Amino acid sequence: MAKAAPLSPLAPARFPDLPPVAGVRMATAEAGIRYKGRTDVLLVLMDEGTQAAGVFTRSKCPSAPVDWCRAALKDGSARALVVNSGNANAFTGKKGAEAVALTAELAAEAAGCRPSEVYLASTGVIGEPLDAGKFRGVLAETAGRVSPGAFEDAGRAIMTTDTFPKGATATVDFGGVPVTINGIAKGAGMIAPDMATMLSFVFTDAPIAGNILQDLLSRGVVDSFNAVTVDSDTSTSDTLLLFATGKAGGAPVTDAADPRLADFARALDSVLLDLAQQVARDGEGARKFVTVEVRGATSKKAARRIGLSIANSPLVKTAVAGEDANWGRVVMAVGKAGEEADRDRLAIWFGDIRVAVDGERDPSYDEAAVSAYMKGQAITIAVDIGLGDASDRVYTCDLTKEYVAINGDYRS
Amino acid sequence: MAKAAPLSPLAPARFPDLPPVAGVRMATAEAGIRYKGRTDVLLVLMDEGTQAAGVFTRSKCPSAPVDWCRAALKDGSARALVVNSGNANAFTGKKGAEAVALTAELAAEAAGCRPSEVYLASTGVIGEPLDAGKFRGVLAETAGRVSPGAFEDAGRAIMTTDTFPKGATATVDFGGVPVTINGIAKGAGMIAPDMATMLSFVFTDAPIAGNILQDLLSRGVVDSFNAVTVDSDTSTSDTLLLFATGKAGGAPVTDAADPRLADFARALDSVLLDLAQQVARDGEGARKFVTVEVRGATSKKAARRIGLSIANSPLVKTAVAGEDANWGRVVMAVGKAGEEADRDRLAIWFGDIRVAVDGERDPSYDEAAVSAYMKGQAITIAVDIGLGDASDRVYTCDLTKEYVAINGDYRS
Repeated sequence: MAKAAPLSPLAPARFPDLPPVAGVRMATAEAGIRYKGRTDVLLVLMDEGTQAAGVFTRSKCPSAPVDWCRAALKDGSARALVVNSGNANAFTGKKGAEAVALTAELAAEAAGCRPSEVYLASTGVIGEPLDAGKFRGVLAETAGRVSPGAFEDAGRAIMTTDTFPKGATATVDFGGVPVTINGIAKGAGMIAPDMATMLSFVFTDAPIAGNILQDLLSRGVVDSFNAVTVDSDTSTSDTLLLFATGKAGGAPVTDAADPRLADFARALDSVLLDLAQQVARDGEGARKFVTVEVRGATSKKAARRIGLSIANSPLVKTAVAGEDANWGRVVMAVGKAGEEADRDRLAIWFGDIRVAVDGERDPSYDEAAVSAYMKGQAITIAVDIGLGDASDRVYTCDLTKEYVAINGDYRS
Repeated sequence: MAKAAPLSPLAPARFPDLPPVAGVRMATAEAGIRYKGRTDVLLVLMDEGTQAAGVFTRSKCPSAPVDWCRAALKDGSARALVVNSGNANAFTGKKGAEAVALTAELAAEAAGCRPSEVYLASTGVIGEPLDAGKFRGVLAETAGRVSPGAFEDAGRAIMTTDTFPKGATATVDFGGVPVTINGIAKGAGMIAPDMATMLSFVFTDAPIAGNILQDLLSRGVVDSFNAVTVDSDTSTSDTLLLFATGKAGGAPVTDAADPRLADFARALDSVLLDLAQQVARDGEGARKFVTVEVRGATSKKAARRIGLSIANSPLVKTAVAGEDANWGRVVMAVGKAGEEADRDRLAIWFGDIRVAVDGERDPSYDEAAVSAYMKGQAITIAVDIGLGDASDRVYTCDLTKEYVAINGDYRS
């Protein structure tokens, strides 16, 4: 069983106030899948007419729930979401497919909908059969307790090695109607683009057709969840679902050029980025939140690849953990990224302090100032490649002994 | 300054006996570049007629000595090799190029050769200017002390965070003449294909023309140094040089079809593999040596990519450190490799124990047997992809808290 790690020092002061989203109600339960004395199942019920969109892990060995959701999205109508923690139902063969089918059937009964309108996500250990029979009774009972204000409870029920529940919210004017966007997420390790053992569920009462919703989500993940890495490992189970109930009122958006979408897209992006950053802030063993900015690259794609090379480098991450402004390792990571680079044009900053320029140490380099900066909790590493004008930004955390401790003792 | 880490538990019992190689003499010295009270310079002198071959880091930001060696190889004649530890002379701008030019000049004076016949390698901190003036006097003095039997001293002088000197040797019949192949290597972190902060120097008295030598070396690294990873980080300084003095006698090989080459190539490969494995055995903080075997892949390239995905996964490596046969993480690493995979055809073994088959836990899975196996020092993880008949093998070590400690406190 996963040990309870101490609260991440990078955790927000508290879970934000998430207002109700019209048409969305939820409750949590203890199904005893793996953990004792804590909730491990979330059931969300959504009103008729709810549209769904999703993005998933790029793993070639996805979990059974990911297979299920991909199939369910072909319809696009959503009435229920069931999430369990403790068991990922991944690499469980035929038993895995049977478990999702049974879970969807039980949830459909409880929600009064078709199984194809049920979305499923599981997180936890890979390779252990999930006993979906444990949901029998539990889902029906939970459906009797759903309420619109249970987002924090929902965030807690889906945690695994997370040290805090993750939520974000935004309210935006949608053609004269106020709409809400609420999201919850879990994820702390095995976090790498694209996606992570990262589950996130975002709910809005805006009226948006499924195909438009999918487009908004697919664009939104690029600079949020896909720009976050904890340890370069990619889960079999990554799932981000966006549900729109339409209950805020107004005519449904069916055209991507609808002027109501501009502010909504910005608000959605901010919720996604907030959640994604919280995942990095809860990176296993994390003591520092790291932003990597790449400028002067030949393309956004090149900037992303260089940024991830820096953000995923164990040597860069351990240097940050050691509060060491080891820009030589940043050079190393730029060099190994495989993108065009000219050693003698590189410049590197830690925070606002330029430590290297024109391929060598900055003449005005002040070790004391940099050392003081490295003691902070939020570290920005910026690199100017000096070859173009494309830029990008990715987020990660440091690599500490606690990461090793957490992951060397997860299953036992 | 790098702290002296305790001897790796995976170290060989002792440095092997390396016999002299005709035409090769060497000595070491204390130039005081960074370390105190230990040797940090190696000077190797080679007889006239020596041919050289080399492979280097693929970093786009290579060190000044790598630039120098690439240029020197265009000539291909070699008379001297200078290696220093403590400073990598990487990302040192114009000063770096000046430092290698001065070092080569001083070595050429000491060896009585042209600067273009001098090969250089540096390892240590990146981004600090190297004061090549410290070699003045030192190289001339060292040249007066060279001897044919100083391979272990040589191996020690080039160490950085290595906990033991690395050497390997083979003797082989070369058309009726016995020839020797001796190699030394250093490297413990920042080890990833292709190459590593890995320096290795191999010497033979076989008579082989430079272009043939280069071909042998380029083929030889594929399944040795390029099949080893410690932490997925790639140094700016990786250098593997092969020198052939020809002093064993016999007509020089100038034709790749020369029958004398077959046994020689096998012996060279075994020396390279031995050295490369010693690098993984000295991986920073390593407690376990890990062999990853991939079978049933659609191509050798796919097998290599899957193997490296497993070998570089922090979650797999921390699980091995925790003596946890966490095959779910192996599935994860197969899935994220980006190569074709079918979850339901995968089989996974730890040692001889099959833990998963046909996409789920092996019905005969015996946790106790696997747990006992995981307590050993040499762990083999085997995966059958079930899609083809290509295979590959790569080597790594576990990821421990000591890795984080070593790398969080390297510069200070």
